[in-house]
Amino acid sequence: MIIVMKKEANAADIAMVVARVEKLGYQAHLSTGEERTIIGLIGGQRPVDKTQFEVLEPVEKAMPVMHPYKLASRDMHPNGTMVALNGFKLGGEKIGIIAGPCAVESRSQFLETAYAVKEAGATALRGGIFKPRSSPYSFQGLGEEGLELISEAYELTGLPVVTEALSPEQVPLVARHAAMIQVGARNMQNFALLQAVGQSGQPVLLKRGMMATIEEWLMAAEYILANGNPHVVLCERGIRTFERATRNSTDISSIPVIKQASHLPIILDPSHSTGRHNYVAAVARAGIAAGADGLIIEVHPRPEEALSDGAQSLKPEKFARLVEETRAIAAAIGRSL
Amino acid sequence: MIIVMKKEANAADIAMVVARVEKLGYQAHLSTGEERTIIGLIGGQRPVDKTQFEVLEPVEKAMPVMHPYKLASRDMHPNGTMVALNGFKLGGEKIGIIAGPCAVESRSQFLETAYAVKEAGATALRGGIFKPRSSPYSFQGLGEEGLELISEAYELTGLPVVTEALSPEQVPLVARHAAMIQVGARNMQNFALLQAVGQSGQPVLLKRGMMATIEEWLMAAEYILANGNPHVVLCERGIRTFERATRNSTDISSIPVIKQASHLPIILDPSHSTGRHNYVAAVARAGIAAGADGLIIEVHPRPEEALSDGAQSLKPEKFARLVEETRAIAAAIGRSL
Amino acid sequence: MIIVMKKEANAADIAMVVARVEKLGYQAHLSTGEERTIIGLIGGQRPVDKTQFEVLEPVEKAMPVMHPYKLASRDMHPNGTMVALNGFKLGGEKIGIIAGPCAVESRSQFLETAYAVKEAGATALRGGIFKPRSSPYSFQGLGEEGLELISEAYELTGLPVVTEALSPEQVPLVARHAAMIQVGARNMQNFALLQAVGQSGQPVLLKRGMMATIEEWLMAAEYILANGNPHVVLCERGIRTFERATRNSTDISSIPVIKQASHLPIILDPSHSTGRHNYVAAVARAGIAAGADGLIIEVHPRPEEALSDGAQSLKPEKFARLVEETRAIAAAIGRSL
Amino acid sequence: MIIVMKKEANAADIAMVVARVEKLGYQAHLSTGEERTIIGLIGGQRPVDKTQFEVLEPVEKAMPVMHPYKLASRDMHPNGTMVALNGFKLGGEKIGIIAGPCAVESRSQFLETAYAVKEAGATALRGGIFKPRSSPYSFQGLGEEGLELISEAYELTGLPVVTEALSPEQVPLVARHAAMIQVGARNMQNFALLQAVGQSGQPVLLKRGMMATIEEWLMAAEYILANGNPHVVLCERGIRTFERATRNSTDISSIPVIKQASHLPIILDPSHSTGRHNYVAAVARAGIAAGADGLIIEVHPRPEEALSDGAQSLKPEKFARLVEETRAIAAAIGRSL
Repeated sequence: MIIVMKKEANAADIAMVVARVEKLGYQAHLSTGEERTIIGLIGGQRPVDKTQFEVLEPVEKAMPVMHPYKLASRDMHPNGTMVALNGFKLGGEKIGIIAGPCAVESRSQFLETAYAVKEAGATALRGGIFKPRSSPYSFQGLGEEGLELISEAYELTGLPVVTEALSPEQVPLVARHAAMIQVGARNMQNFALLQAVGQSGQPVLLKRGMMATIEEWLMAAEYILANGNPHVVLCERGIRTFERATRNSTDISSIPVIKQASHLPIILDPSHSTGRHNYVAAVARAGIAAGADGLIIEVHPRPEEALSDGAQSLKPEKFARLVEETRAIAAAIGRSL
Repeated sequence: MIIVMKKEANAADIAMVVARVEKLGYQAHLSTGEERTIIGLIGGQRPVDKTQFEVLEPVEKAMPVMHPYKLASRDMHPNGTMVALNGFKLGGEKIGIIAGPCAVESRSQFLETAYAVKEAGATALRGGIFKPRSSPYSFQGLGEEGLELISEAYELTGLPVVTEALSPEQVPLVARHAAMIQVGARNMQNFALLQAVGQSGQPVLLKRGMMATIEEWLMAAEYILANGNPHVVLCERGIRTFERATRNSTDISSIPVIKQASHLPIILDPSHSTGRHNYVAAVARAGIAAGADGLIIEVHPRPEEALSDGAQSLKPEKFARLVEETRAIAAAIGRSL
Repeated sequence: MIIVMKKEANAADIAMVVARVEKLGYQAHLSTGEERTIIGLIGGQRPVDKTQFEVLEPVEKAMPVMHPYKLASRDMHPNGTMVALNGFKLGGEKIGIIAGPCAVESRSQFLETAYAVKEAGATALRGGIFKPRSSPYSFQGLGEEGLELISEAYELTGLPVVTEALSPEQVPLVARHAAMIQVGARNMQNFALLQAVGQSGQPVLLKRGMMATIEEWLMAAEYILANGNPHVVLCERGIRTFERATRNSTDISSIPVIKQASHLPIILDPSHSTGRHNYVAAVARAGIAAGADGLIIEVHPRPEEALSDGAQSLKPEKFARLVEETRAIAAAIGRSL
Repeated sequence: MIIVMKKEANAADIAMVVARVEKLGYQAHLSTGEERTIIGLIGGQRPVDKTQFEVLEPVEKAMPVMHPYKLASRDMHPNGTMVALNGFKLGGEKIGIIAGPCAVESRSQFLETAYAVKEAGATALRGGIFKPRSSPYSFQGLGEEGLELISEAYELTGLPVVTEALSPEQVPLVARHAAMIQVGARNMQNFALLQAVGQSGQPVLLKRGMMATIEEWLMAAEYILANGNPHVVLCERGIRTFERATRNSTDISSIPVIKQASHLPIILDPSHSTGRHNYVAAVARAGIAAGADGLIIEVHPRPEEALSDGAQSLKPEKFARLVEETRAIAAAIGRSL
């Protein structure tokens, strides 16, 4: 932390700030310029919040020097970590592809999609049973009765299933049936939920909040890691901006930024980040080219009948083509499917 | 809903879309232009999602004509509604002022603040005991042991207390001790929590998500209303933009927009929206001048010792001055404190 | 400037950075922590760009300590400056109100509006003759033939006129006829134009770019000031965000932020920032309550016939009511009209 | 255009709106629902601004059905257009790579870079001589004396040069020396400049404004096209969001969106969109994978000595590696360098 004193700060002001620094267990290091004094914090064990200094009258501002996450930092595992989803290791040389419907609507719809995406080359299956919907009048998912379908789909196809939990009490239920628990974008800072999935020990797919900075996203991962669960995969799904041609704006740069800042695997969701099926393949290719470890794609046998997100869902044949394009891009950068 | 067909759509395409419209229980009304056909939906009971049409190949886009909320709409109560907080009615002629520390840190800190804000003219008391913190290493609030302090502060000062619940299971606990349950900005679309506070029947302070549109915010209110709880107060607390001189950007226009769109009371939180104590009073005055029904202000007897949000907390004497300025602005627009 | 070295930086790396600091005419001040070395720049005359250090391999990041503007800083004139518009001084105790049509459409429309806003209490007149339109097919303003109307309106009503210049070559023309030259939001970083209005010596109304930070806005003012023109008034006109209920989001906090950071007067444009006439009065009141030195308001005798921006224009009688409301708010904070 | 009437609109209101629609040369087509009447505009030649209707009291809102651009629309050239830069055709099967320093700093720096990027496989050379800098105290480019260097670099290397013009009067000068005139992000809505480059007839590289929607960007292109110049190449260079890990957020989806909406070639600038050299290659690969027709990359022989944008400039050897990676991605999608 660097503390910049106000121009008019005098010796007593500086002494007061230094005393506070030391009280927090740090040493204070002064740089006395012609116009200002700057105080650096050295040593110390506990993290310090910059507002603890900015609240002091003679302080102009305080600037953190270090990022606030530790367990999520690449420094912890310079070679990166992998998260196993049954046999498949996300974060390794091979690109993972998770595919399936936005929502599990019925046994036949889910199984039909499951077989189709498996045939096309998917590594895992997605399908929501607890659906966070912005309207209380929209289809909210099958709920608990969908859990059995998740188990059945896994047994029949061998594809591990990713599904979302919306509240702490759903976590154990979901963990029993699904291979990976998704924390959705709207819940990225639902700290009670982060703690619950952390304690579950189950692999977690942590979607980026649509308003979250990369640093906040890594802090959300830190919650899970700090609760003892190292199996975290990050998922970029677009951020909210002023642009309206797409549902969100895919922050493609987050992929190389995360790769440098963190050891965690990162995948891309081009379905939610674009919101329209005709842009999904282009953005999926971009994600792999940028270094993502995988994709999560919405597929529906009849998108026009989907109970949610039909406009961004691919038909199985279009998905199969996307898989082939992804394979070509992966090969171009020395990876494979 | 208006459906715009693609230029190349032919008669069969149009018939297909019309059939789908009718299957959903609506009548289709065609406008055939030189370049395009446009189909309007008439009648119908169930709300329709525009993506159900946009997913169809010959459709260029679908545009909702109506807003998606009903119970939150001003049409329901053209004269506005009021929410009682003990004797005080938020949404009436009188401006309400909720004040107190970001977090309840100790009995003495909370009571000292409670007496101070009461003396300065506050209508209600705020104080967090379950704190959503972006770092797992930050102070997370006193938790359940803080609940008794909330009851005690109310008994001693007569000020009703507003405090946040972070998960559905905290709702009954909080409802037993606090007069009003806060749903925080990060939880504005935590639908499990919205349902729980809806079912509680207790007055709810619904903060706007930092990346939420006004329409999404009203849909979050709709969740609470649709669960049978009419006692909802909206709270503008700033949105996230590219500007960094303030913690968030206060969307001052949301006040007249909400006043026109909805019957619900709206208050402003200038502490979180600016993030710095020296801007709080100016933005508070602006909020009242724009028509807000109240303010929620962070006050701490010693901000430099606050365990959270010290930089945006006012000392009691500065808060007292803010109350007087607010009184003058209220009088200028024909309201009072 | 503070330079944070990478964890792995060694003594040679540090020496290299120090050498570069000194080559730029600064002294380097080292803080050696357990994990990192931090280098502060002391002294020096020329401003330094942080990227000059961030480009160096062993540097993690560089953080400016000072803001980059000088002439626009409040430090230069702690009591604030005023800009005279004929007799009226913007930035003084009195609130200025500039009003008139978005575009000068005809002699009769402009004069009718001019007389109406004068009667209602306006201090100055606005009216665009060179119109920046996002479509090449929209009305682009009367152009040079409008200049005479500007002079005539001034002669007949005594109200000084504010009008926009779009390019350096229009500046001398506009300066001859108008009392104040507007630099529009889209041109806030049109540096050729900023230099031209700087050299003109004429009062300038500098609108904030819709995606400009407050710091960039003050740097645009710095361009004008550095070219020898001290007569700069800032105008907040809303920033672009994800919200669509209003045309832009009024950044109300920019008013207290500017008042603290700069000595320049600041006014608010609630017409452009909201984009809808029914929100203009509420936001205008908010601006004055927050401390703005004035308002600029679009008024049109028949908004439904306006060639541009009709939806955000007030009829004269509604404008007259806004002036009275503004007067009441001004009185409440100890100012007057 | 679709006009939605207010719920309370009566027959006279509707007749008034219909009369206005017809006065503008359109036919009105009514859909009378149970709650609202909706009026569609049919036929008509002149574009209509939606605010012309929204200003009417009984109108709730007006929604444009068509996009506002014509010449830039893909409908005009369904197979896309190409823009020749000397022999090379941007927009064809081959990917173009424009590279060079942010600013031309000296003869030796520019020529050294030019030879290096040519050797690495660049198609064209970039180099700014008129630099838009946010500070009046920063290096503003060599100005007119740099023009000769541009001609010389072209003669020596055969690489056509792209350079920026900042104002209408610089356009003829730049057109005489450079093969392609750049309109920078800050000038995307500098309409005087757009007209001037339109009239020049010279190939134009139109950068997206950092706050511009894709629609506004295409309208800026429309200005150039409507002034008789069909040689327009679009350049995505990142938009401004709340994220700060990168200088801007690369809107990767804009590439497929533009490819579908417009016939114009589009290239990507990963240097400005990321702002840091270590993210440039990943985002460059993503752009080609998403379908961009080319890249524009900042290269400097000694980034640490660059007078501007050093932190985002690649050394020639890193650029050469990027070219090879681009070649592999291009091959994977059936294109070539």
